[in-house]
Amino acid sequence: MSGVSRRLKRILPDGRGVVLAFDHGLEHGPLAYKGIDLSPQRIIGMAGEGGADAVLLHKGMVREKNLRDVALIVKLTGKTSLSPVETQSLVSEVENAVALGADAVAATIYFNVEDEPAMLSQFRGVWSAAREYGLPVIAFAYPRPLPKERRYKEEFVAPAARAVAEVGADIVKTYYTGDGKSWRRVIGGAAAPVLAAGGKMKEKEAEVLGMVREIMSAGGAGIAVGRNVWERADGARLLKKIVAIVHERS
Amino acid sequence: MSGVSRRLKRILPDGRGVVLAFDHGLEHGPLAYKGIDLSPQRIIGMAGEGGADAVLLHKGMVREKNLRDVALIVKLTGKTSLSPVETQSLVSEVENAVALGADAVAATIYFNVEDEPAMLSQFRGVWSAAREYGLPVIAFAYPRPLPKERRYKEEFVAPAARAVAEVGADIVKTYYTGDGKSWRRVIGGAAAPVLAAGGKMKEKEAEVLGMVREIMSAGGAGIAVGRNVWERADGARLLKKIVAIVHERS
Amino acid sequence: MSGVSRRLKRILPDGRGVVLAFDHGLEHGPLAYKGIDLSPQRIIGMAGEGGADAVLLHKGMVREKNLRDVALIVKLTGKTSLSPVETQSLVSEVENAVALGADAVAATIYFNVEDEPAMLSQFRGVWSAAREYGLPVIAFAYPRPLPKERRYKEEFVAPAARAVAEVGADIVKTYYTGDGKSWRRVIGGAAAPVLAAGGKMKEKEAEVLGMVREIMSAGGAGIAVGRNVWERADGARLLKKIVAIVHERS
Amino acid sequence: MSGVSRRLKRILPDGRGVVLAFDHGLEHGPLAYKGIDLSPQRIIGMAGEGGADAVLLHKGMVREKNLRDVALIVKLTGKTSLSPVETQSLVSEVENAVALGADAVAATIYFNVEDEPAMLSQFRGVWSAAREYGLPVIAFAYPRPLPKERRYKEEFVAPAARAVAEVGADIVKTYYTGDGKSWRRVIGGAAAPVLAAGGKMKEKEAEVLGMVREIMSAGGAGIAVGRNVWERADGARLLKKIVAIVHERS
Amino acid sequence: MSGVSRRLKRILPDGRGVVLAFDHGLEHGPLAYKGIDLSPQRIIGMAGEGGADAVLLHKGMVREKNLRDVALIVKLTGKTSLSPVETQSLVSEVENAVALGADAVAATIYFNVEDEPAMLSQFRGVWSAAREYGLPVIAFAYPRPLPKERRYKEEFVAPAARAVAEVGADIVKTYYTGDGKSWRRVIGGAAAPVLAAGGKMKEKEAEVLGMVREIMSAGGAGIAVGRNVWERADGARLLKKIVAIVHERS
Repeated sequence: MSGVSRRLKRILPDGRGVVLAFDHGLEHGPLAYKGIDLSPQRIIGMAGEGGADAVLLHKGMVREKNLRDVALIVKLTGKTSLSPVETQSLVSEVENAVALGADAVAATIYFNVEDEPAMLSQFRGVWSAAREYGLPVIAFAYPRPLPKERRYKEEFVAPAARAVAEVGADIVKTYYTGDGKSWRRVIGGAAAPVLAAGGKMKEKEAEVLGMVREIMSAGGAGIAVGRNVWERADGARLLKKIVAIVHERS
Repeated sequence: MSGVSRRLKRILPDGRGVVLAFDHGLEHGPLAYKGIDLSPQRIIGMAGEGGADAVLLHKGMVREKNLRDVALIVKLTGKTSLSPVETQSLVSEVENAVALGADAVAATIYFNVEDEPAMLSQFRGVWSAAREYGLPVIAFAYPRPLPKERRYKEEFVAPAARAVAEVGADIVKTYYTGDGKSWRRVIGGAAAPVLAAGGKMKEKEAEVLGMVREIMSAGGAGIAVGRNVWERADGARLLKKIVAIVHERS
Repeated sequence: MSGVSRRLKRILPDGRGVVLAFDHGLEHGPLAYKGIDLSPQRIIGMAGEGGADAVLLHKGMVREKNLRDVALIVKLTGKTSLSPVETQSLVSEVENAVALGADAVAATIYFNVEDEPAMLSQFRGVWSAAREYGLPVIAFAYPRPLPKERRYKEEFVAPAARAVAEVGADIVKTYYTGDGKSWRRVIGGAAAPVLAAGGKMKEKEAEVLGMVREIMSAGGAGIAVGRNVWERADGARLLKKIVAIVHERS
Repeated sequence: MSGVSRRLKRILPDGRGVVLAFDHGLEHGPLAYKGIDLSPQRIIGMAGEGGADAVLLHKGMVREKNLRDVALIVKLTGKTSLSPVETQSLVSEVENAVALGADAVAATIYFNVEDEPAMLSQFRGVWSAAREYGLPVIAFAYPRPLPKERRYKEEFVAPAARAVAEVGADIVKTYYTGDGKSWRRVIGGAAAPVLAAGGKMKEKEAEVLGMVREIMSAGGAGIAVGRNVWERADGARLLKKIVAIVHERS
Repeated sequence: MSGVSRRLKRILPDGRGVVLAFDHGLEHGPLAYKGIDLSPQRIIGMAGEGGADAVLLHKGMVREKNLRDVALIVKLTGKTSLSPVETQSLVSEVENAVALGADAVAATIYFNVEDEPAMLSQFRGVWSAAREYGLPVIAFAYPRPLPKERRYKEEFVAPAARAVAEVGADIVKTYYTGDGKSWRRVIGGAAAPVLAAGGKMKEKEAEVLGMVREIMSAGGAGIAVGRNVWERADGARLLKKIVAIVHERS
């Protein structure tokens, strides 16, 4: 079993997995989450307590060494909410992730924007370096048509998801299209395991769990959840329930 | 016999060849082919069954190891249907193709677009790296004038085909101009073996075979066929017929 | 204790520190300070006399070898007042700083400008090289919305400060938001030690000291002061008072 | 005698020389020369038969190994007639030329265009790599003011010719200004040997020979001729006459 | 004494120096100097005869090996009069200068133009490479505001001169502001030795010598003279007088 396969197994142990995503400090900034403790210590703690398969962070937030059994995914690209340009910069090297003991790296490609070709090229470099170290690569396939709501449409999500698999992504993460029927088509066309992005905070826990069930029924490989967990004081509790659904322990 | 010559012989065994092209997952996306199984397993299987000389894929789709006698061409550049920019990114390194055991690499250059100079420069890097590994290089010489239909005109195809031969392409792949007379002139001016791109799905099998005969009568080196084969449930059967024409076994 | 931690300790000995900043020769030019001696000898002398923890200079100004106990921070990026473009060039290599015996390097990222992604990428290179040499990295997180006054607003400062911590900054330097309440929130969201930029010369010494107290009461890690010290003939005297407040010796 | 001097001697044996240029397949495309055999075999054969000192080709056209006594110059830059951008891409590496046994390399710089600075930078890389291998560098100094006819004016040709000599060109090739008087001034100011570009096909042989005599009387180092030779069925015969004039054997 | 100090001493033996500048072939072209012999042999000869401390040339003009006691400064950047873009390309590598036995290298940075950040970055590379070889770096600090006459104003010259010293220039060369009073302020704020650019040919010798005296009285480190010397048939004679003033032998 190669390094890539072995490490993929940590993130998707039974072919399915739950990733606790926490790149929001860079992407949205602290003011988007007033009153919420955004310290990496808290989020990493939650990931362990809730039984997530992996946690996803930028390198600057990897300080808590005690990750228990949670795999570490280092996000290598980013864009702040202040940037007027729809592009993801490479903010960390694969080597930086290796030095932190990462189990995988992640990079975002925006589609349907001027810089799409540049991000595809950037992904090539990330992929090649990650392969040298036997690290799996998770691609965030994010179409960005205008107006903003259109980015969740199947017509954008499906080709983006397939594209990143074509260029080597071991796991695809993309916007959830919102219903099981279209999600099934996205997954069917992607030719690689697909994780749904959990999206914005939903008030009702039932809504979150309903979405997770919908995603898994469609044949999805799991979910990358963030705000719905750590915006809740008792997020670890909800995370446990999500994990149970994804791994069919409920 | 050098590595390049030996490997070229796999793709064009008698100076002519048939390539089953399957870079459409990246270029057009899965929604363009509703109801069709776009898994690489199926297409690679078809290539073997139909007797294609080679199959052309992006690195992320090379998973089926059993390629039988079919040569593997890894496509190194790509553009999605979502991209607003008429340019081909380098999505894989020559080294990635080597690691997959490729027999050749392929790269697209768009002509008549703002980024033509950048793609020519990019091709230089691909060519030099491929030469180091003794791999032949297939150039997709694709003019992109507007409106779209003009790209099949001889006045664009002929200089594009010649240009890629000048910069070192071992095999030229370009748009079929649509008639034997002009195709003969494209081939005559190219100074390298030329494969016609098969183009969109044609309803009638006879139409496809007629086109292949026209191409070969004009002195062509063969065809790179894709949609006309794998959009058909029984594509392998048609592929066999195409192969027979190209290699003059019919 | 790693090289980074050990050197950080020189700049923030008790978790707090005072940096005498002197990159104004490049950023603003000599005419902005008529009648003031802008020789590095004078400023370095002041830093020692006033008891600053560190002095921050461009490589061309590091000539006085006798830095006493003052740590040396070499600024690696810069923009002149003549430049029509809102971007910071990389004007020195990390290796240049190492050759000068630097204890840390500093780089500016402008946010809310067209070149924000380019500066984030540039910071990645600086950070990676600095890590190889065990040097801490100080990031100047400077939002640049228009009109100019808006750059001090919490809505810009807070996400910028957090962003640089996410991408690895060991110390964040950013615009002081002007009041303790908002500064507390900036610090709370940054997830790394934050230094306030001292800003323009204030006529009254009491005003400067008031600001320093406000910053420290909010839980800040200190201040990077420049003009308020070296625009005064007796700047070392004021610097001593600032140092006393920051290190709670007053 | 250094490698550069020794190889220069092959191209300009008595300080003067005749180069048969054949980069037109890339620059103009085959349709510009209907009915003419543009195979490299034919042109290389002509160069040998006509006694040219050197032949100039793109790497993809160097297939005929038997160059007899003709020196090989590999052109490293190019632009097709389809490109909407007035720039020359680097289409081959110096190393590619070395692998082909080249005696020299050539690169074009367009002047008076937006990309002039980029081409000067590109030339720097070519020059430095060529020097490592002891290869002379021929620079095509081509001003491109609008309208097109102005490019032959002394006011553009003279500074362009000088500029490439300043940046290291061993031989300058530039547009013939059309009369001996101005050509003498171009040569006088260039500070390096200057070859005239032969330009478009002239119907009458006498016209061609008249031009060559004019060029040589002005003190020129020779001519780079192309279309006037290989657009003629019996081009080798005319080439012989040109060679005789240039080397004063007539 | 380091290599840099030792070589600086050749150019500014008593802290002051005279450089004969001859990069005009690239910058202005031969037609700007009709009737004047612009061969490097003549100018290098003049430098020796007139007793200049150094001569400044592009690499393509360094042919005369016999430089006597004159130090060689190789100019690494350039822009022709034909270029529509206000930027200086890197036309030579530091390594090219080293191979020619240079005592120093020079590079221009334009300020107040779109490409100022790019030229500052370019200078970083030049500086770092030069340091590796122990070569001093002379920076041409040239502001380029419009209209053209404004470039000589102190408000532009002073910050530009300081900026290049901040980023490591060992010697600053900038536009003479035209009067001793403002020049004194430029020098005072620069924090590095400053040479005045001699500017256009002045008809009267007395005018030239008056300017030199003015420059030196203001505390300048000398002058980089070009046109005023080599546009004169007996330029060496004037050069001797300039040298005498600068080195206070008159």
